Amino acid sequence: MIRHSLLPLALLALAAGSAPVPSPADIVSAAPTDDWEEIPADDVLVMTLTGGSTVTIQLVRDFAPVHVANIRKLVAAHFWDGTTVNRVQENYVVQWGDASEKKPLPADLQVARAKDYTRPLAGLDFQPLPYRDAYAIRVGHSHGWPVASDGKQAWLPHCFGMIGVGRNLAPDTGSGAELYVVNGHAPRHLDRNIAVVGRVLDGIGALTTLPRGTASLGFYEKPEQRTGIMSIRIEATQRWQMMRTGSASFAALTSARANRRDPFFNVPAGGADICNEPVPIRKAPPSSNHG
Amino acid sequence: MIRHSLLPLALLALAAGSAPVPSPADIVSAAPTDDWEEIPADDVLVMTLTGGSTVTIQLVRDFAPVHVANIRKLVAAHFWDGTTVNRVQENYVVQWGDASEKKPLPADLQVARAKDYTRPLAGLDFQPLPYRDAYAIRVGHSHGWPVASDGKQAWLPHCFGMIGVGRNLAPDTGSGAELYVVNGHAPRHLDRNIAVVGRVLDGIGALTTLPRGTASLGFYEKPEQRTGIMSIRIEATQRWQMMRTGSASFAALTSARANRRDPFFNVPAGGADICNEPVPIRKAPPSSNHG
Repeated sequence: MIRHSLLPLALLALAAGSAPVPSPADIVSAAPTDDWEEIPADDVLVMTLTGGSTVTIQLVRDFAPVHVANIRKLVAAHFWDGTTVNRVQENYVVQWGDASEKKPLPADLQVARAKDYTRPLAGLDFQPLPYRDAYAIRVGHSHGWPVASDGKQAWLPHCFGMIGVGRNLAPDTGSGAELYVVNGHAPRHLDRNIAVVGRVLDGIGALTTLPRGTASLGFYEKPEQRTGIMSIRIEATQRWQMMRTGSASFAALTSARANRRDPFFNVPAGGADICNEPVPIRKAPPSSNHG
Repeated sequence: MIRHSLLPLALLALAAGSAPVPSPADIVSAAPTDDWEEIPADDVLVMTLTGGSTVTIQLVRDFAPVHVANIRKLVAAHFWDGTTVNRVQENYVVQWGDASEKKPLPADLQVARAKDYTRPLAGLDFQPLPYRDAYAIRVGHSHGWPVASDGKQAWLPHCFGMIGVGRNLAPDTGSGAELYVVNGHAPRHLDRNIAVVGRVLDGIGALTTLPRGTASLGFYEKPEQRTGIMSIRIEATQRWQMMRTGSASFAALTSARANRRDPFFNVPAGGADICNEPVPIRKAPPSSNHG
């Protein structure tokens, strides 16, 4: 596709492989401070498992407000302390909550409905990606999150590491007390059928390496197989940053991922799945401002 | 989208939710014997890990013939006995082989080249799916395997559970001695850049639950962190079957997955990712013929 005779010498050298092309990791490393933004401290939860492993979670701001408000109340009530991880299904989800389904919920939870599974695309600061998607008409990012849309409504896709609200058959039965994280290929058929409320920022291995449940749907057969949850708390000590999805660095990153030209690659894909375009996350450098 | 006034009563009842619609699992359970075919016994490998866990692997027939022929020679030479799982990278791959890179290879291995990463679409018994894909112009199945294509060449996509041949920077450096399995969201940017040679039929949890490596790219930092491989052998005792991808059952299954109308679902997706359309695999029922 590249016609060498029309290229200046510097690009000829690149095309010939004599100078390395930045990899996605190179672009992330080189991103200037302004291309990162602080994740609000009260959006960051830390789940501590029996044994001391921790999983750091970010709640979303622009989607599923009723579910997310419920989750904040459940955290404040220490609802998950002493509950368990109840389900680990290979290439699907890891799910946790009160296995007895009898633990009292905080009295002030709101009923979240199917209409809360999506929101209008209008009002989002949406950066579309020019890629085909099997499940949506448009995909892209908004304020640090992957987004899928039918052109009118928008929703968070069920990518690896995204967290959703378990429910029963009726769509208004998910309070937020039962949560799961995607541990495999994105089960995008769940999009618009379940509320996605956040993602794992760090430590997902503590969940993805758990033994798979051998009962139906990956639930554990015996109570003693479940891993205990010591607590889920707002975590204000470690500060986290996400790359600004409107930044030049992120635009370069998404393009580089879709068109890999670093030395290992021979055939650039020419596109990328929205779930292969995750937003870079990092611990805030010691020198950075809280702003 | 369904106009009730035009529907016969039976469909009205379905649309109203008063009769259950078959789920993908229901369709698999109901598939007649003729819609399954035996997997050739000499395509089935069993990897036994230290501790006794086993992972069952199927080699592909219609793709990557040079790499697959090499793998058969490596199995026959017992090459992997005493090697290790060296890399577990979250949401990417689990990789195994000779960590020293000094173990002698069988003398008769062939050099596999980049041209072997794809093959012509012509000649395949290809059942296309009508879904958009970020990485390929056409996706579908052929003789029990997922397939992606640009309309001329065809290749096996890097779905969860698919096995590829590790290599160095030059595309002809992958003999087949270093293998990996996808353990997360499909890294489809690897398609056409690496040879895909098979898939895990059973027991993938023995690999996906291993501790993640903490060195670069998920390699283990210390040799003692690696899990040992006792052997990889052709396994002729357990017979396996795959659903015929040209069968009516498989057509119904792919459609049902893309348009979930079983009771949990409110919004059918209208499409599906090729990696969310895996071919059902089962142990051969005791009564079935070997044919």
